[in-house]
Amino acid sequence: MFEARVFVTLKKAILDPQGKAVKSGLLALGYDRVEDVRVGKYLMLTLRTTDRLEAEKEVREMCDRLLANPVIEDYTFELREVAP
Amino acid sequence: MFEARVFVTLKKAILDPQGKAVKSGLLALGYDRVEDVRVGKYLMLTLRTTDRLEAEKEVREMCDRLLANPVIEDYTFELREVAP
Repeated sequence: MFEARVFVTLKKAILDPQGKAVKSGLLALGYDRVEDVRVGKYLMLTLRTTDRLEAEKEVREMCDRLLANPVIEDYTFELREVAP
Repeated sequence: MFEARVFVTLKKAILDPQGKAVKSGLLALGYDRVEDVRVGKYLMLTLRTTDRLEAEKEVREMCDRLLANPVIEDYTFELREVAP
């Protein structure tokens, strides 16, 4: 089995209102060292395969087709083998 | 400067409707090796400090007070030093 950790974030050029809101919340709580906040999606997928290359290919396809919006989002992912 | 990558996920016992929806979407696209999907929040914080211990303490506090709901969510985070 493989576990994929997928990180979907807004492209740098895209305004991040959620990030702005979280930043002002943190500043209001007194955390004035906070320079910037970006908010994104974090997905953990469990895949029934023992073939790393196959897992990698499928996760990339899933991101391109469903998990990330290519117009406004970037994605990265990490794969690790886990016990069934 | 430090960058914190914060991962906020629903506790295992909590139903994850978003995860269920993404899973059925992936199965409908033919990715039938997908066993499970969990969806969470991913936050990238940039902190104006050069003190790792201070950064760690503040990120933990921010998670406890604002970024994660302790009743239904767990969080983990990673810290790395970045150029100013």
